[in-house]
Amino acid sequence: MAYNSIIVRVELNHAEVNFGQVASTIIAAKGDISSIDVIRPGSDRSVRDITIDVSDTAEAKVVESLRALTGVEVINVSDRTFLAHLGGKVSVQPKLPIKNRDDLSRVYTPGVAKVCTSIHENPQKAFSLTIKRNTVAVISDGTAVLGLGDIGPYAAAPVMEGKAMLFKQLADVDAFPLCLDTKDTEEIIRTIKAVSPIFGGINLEDISSPRCFEIETRLADELDIPVFHDDQHGTAVVVTAGLINALKVVGKRMEHIRVVVNGIGAAGVSICKMLLAAGVKRLVPVDRDGAIVRGGTYSNPMWNWLAEQPQVESEPGTLKEMIAGADVFIGVSRGGLLNAEDMQKMAPNNIVFAMANPTPEIDPEEALPHVRVFATGRSDYPNQINNVLVFPGIFRGALDCRATRINEPMKLAAARAIASVISDGERSEQYIIPGIFNEEVVARVRRAVVETAILTGVSRRTPPDFR
Amino acid sequence: MAYNSIIVRVELNHAEVNFGQVASTIIAAKGDISSIDVIRPGSDRSVRDITIDVSDTAEAKVVESLRALTGVEVINVSDRTFLAHLGGKVSVQPKLPIKNRDDLSRVYTPGVAKVCTSIHENPQKAFSLTIKRNTVAVISDGTAVLGLGDIGPYAAAPVMEGKAMLFKQLADVDAFPLCLDTKDTEEIIRTIKAVSPIFGGINLEDISSPRCFEIETRLADELDIPVFHDDQHGTAVVVTAGLINALKVVGKRMEHIRVVVNGIGAAGVSICKMLLAAGVKRLVPVDRDGAIVRGGTYSNPMWNWLAEQPQVESEPGTLKEMIAGADVFIGVSRGGLLNAEDMQKMAPNNIVFAMANPTPEIDPEEALPHVRVFATGRSDYPNQINNVLVFPGIFRGALDCRATRINEPMKLAAARAIASVISDGERSEQYIIPGIFNEEVVARVRRAVVETAILTGVSRRTPPDFR
Repeated sequence: MAYNSIIVRVELNHAEVNFGQVASTIIAAKGDISSIDVIRPGSDRSVRDITIDVSDTAEAKVVESLRALTGVEVINVSDRTFLAHLGGKVSVQPKLPIKNRDDLSRVYTPGVAKVCTSIHENPQKAFSLTIKRNTVAVISDGTAVLGLGDIGPYAAAPVMEGKAMLFKQLADVDAFPLCLDTKDTEEIIRTIKAVSPIFGGINLEDISSPRCFEIETRLADELDIPVFHDDQHGTAVVVTAGLINALKVVGKRMEHIRVVVNGIGAAGVSICKMLLAAGVKRLVPVDRDGAIVRGGTYSNPMWNWLAEQPQVESEPGTLKEMIAGADVFIGVSRGGLLNAEDMQKMAPNNIVFAMANPTPEIDPEEALPHVRVFATGRSDYPNQINNVLVFPGIFRGALDCRATRINEPMKLAAARAIASVISDGERSEQYIIPGIFNEEVVARVRRAVVETAILTGVSRRTPPDFR
Repeated sequence: MAYNSIIVRVELNHAEVNFGQVASTIIAAKGDISSIDVIRPGSDRSVRDITIDVSDTAEAKVVESLRALTGVEVINVSDRTFLAHLGGKVSVQPKLPIKNRDDLSRVYTPGVAKVCTSIHENPQKAFSLTIKRNTVAVISDGTAVLGLGDIGPYAAAPVMEGKAMLFKQLADVDAFPLCLDTKDTEEIIRTIKAVSPIFGGINLEDISSPRCFEIETRLADELDIPVFHDDQHGTAVVVTAGLINALKVVGKRMEHIRVVVNGIGAAGVSICKMLLAAGVKRLVPVDRDGAIVRGGTYSNPMWNWLAEQPQVESEPGTLKEMIAGADVFIGVSRGGLLNAEDMQKMAPNNIVFAMANPTPEIDPEEALPHVRVFATGRSDYPNQINNVLVFPGIFRGALDCRATRINEPMKLAAARAIASVISDGERSEQYIIPGIFNEEVVARVRRAVVETAILTGVSRRTPPDFR
């Protein structure tokens, strides 16, 4: 049972209620008053903030009983999560203070003019003389946010801000959240191109499928800075990293396994692509209507692409049919699709990544007795497959070498780098993927990304530690 | 004579030159070596950074004599201005650290979902739960940057970054620079609307005239957050502030003066508008082809607007003709248009604001004997008319009361607030406008802006200190 601290703002009508009654109501509902702040005093009515320690289960009860009390109006209820969001989660800070006129004339008029002129003569200098060197846009149109769906650009902002915090804390990348008030593919592409000059990279986020494919592909082709749709590739990279280690644990090889991927949206398509790049020879992509088969024709262009790949199996069937004999199941779909029986039908030494959020494709408790290596997207079981392991290091590397794009070899190198953080001695059924606070992750991903960018000819600068 | 510290990166061919020769060359050219860093050692060739203290006048000489030295290749010369720009001038910082899983689950998944849902249910909550509460975009298309003109979005960035620094340092406003890779009016409007959800205000900057008028007007009408083109209104507000005090010094009133405004671009139009709002009854707008007269017809729609105003004089004439008998000259045009004779033709107790940059409309030394109150845009004479006095306080106020726009009464109130910083006892010919580091300015402008926003019905929140 988790405890939470909530702040309830109440207005009291003193003719009808006194604070003693309020306090006893809270205590009766199992709340523990830790402080009281008078916000607006008054003889007839007053407004107070009451901070209450309360268990998750009792929280609703406390608020309801206050609401039921005559003479009390509950104006607002804030918990620690809401309090952490007040005023937003990132700020824009000057890197140096402007202490006097001399400072001002260097960073602003008139001195700044010679810096402007220098960039005008050679636009590549924007990478050294402006924030372009270290700044990424985290951009969403709010159409596919977490499990919430199309909640729009205003409501998407807290996720983008959270991502910006992680970029800075984990990889010292300056990331700024942009939420677009349009869902039109062409308009999104045009807008991102128009705002691109100040950024060294574009992290696309929570844009619904299949629009996300065209938006990313077009932007990657038309801009000379990296464009990375994290829902696709972040997930694919971390899944591949986990699979590399899981296969070592069970003693199988990419070339020999049969893999079922369920849920062929943004993440599923990218996972399939990366598995093929990693050497998988038998792949079964499955969506709501069953397997996507070699030679099939589909309305989604990415599904058609899959149907053309020789490694994709040609037999049709439902998820429950296809999972029989599979070595690996990777789910990025929805909760409660599979049960213990399905696990038993898989090949021996099976690997299951059930990553639907918040409810995995199969209940972990039901799966665990029948699965050799089990992973989810959740933090309350071992082996959390979390793309927080990916985007900070990928962009750190891409910015450091001024990559023009993040290509497939760079993503695969990132996956191998994440897998490599766990040594042979550490690796086990319960430990195939490093934790998100493991400091080795960003450093190794960065190094792998820079090396591969240089090898594949998409870098424009060799960082000092690679010279 | 100002001293500067420069860093010269040189590659030495050891067969042809030794460091002693390099050092004596620098000393002979009047440079003072303060430090030497070996960047790449080597027996045949080496690369070093030499930090040299040198006067402004000798700087070029030092670099030239190094270039002339056989065996020396000058790779790069950085001065303190360039060094201050390395990597850009602002960063994006998390407001709180993510120390553990609990923190992460509050600011990111899964906890963030309830904050998203709350904003989805009521988008106005974006003002309290996201950075929208305190964040302004500083947006340019790079078409009219300083005196440099159309240098494009990459080269404009250092100015926008400098402005973002000033916003934070002077008014604690988080400002993010956006430089647009388009010059198309409709595309600019569309782009800014598309990125607007994360921002609480839009500061337009260095967009060329007359496009700037339509862009600002349309955005102000179509967005529910304030849009402010600083080149227009920042200048108009600070000019009006200076004029209020200058008139007190000379003992004249807005209602009685005849004002010549020269240069009817973005700033000039806005100055004319604000002077009319401030009560000026005799106005003479002048551009390259002479006076814009009442009843005239022009291709620029803003000039036509001026031609319809009853306070605008109807006699045509050149600048030199119109200035005769004027009480006030305000120049936002170009250098060297006027001389001492023109000053003598003005009315007694004349006021001259010669703000062309970097060369004023009349040479200060030539003007001063013939002008009662003289001001420029320069920092090396008294009375610097600088819009750094305006935008921080205007946006601080607009954000604090969640204003939907910045209307004319708010701008006029800001001008009066700036003027009010100088007390009756302090005010003089040499002191009509406060300095940019005067801490009273932002506080007074903010208060005036909030008060006027509330009075004119454009505020959506009453800040605690106004309740």
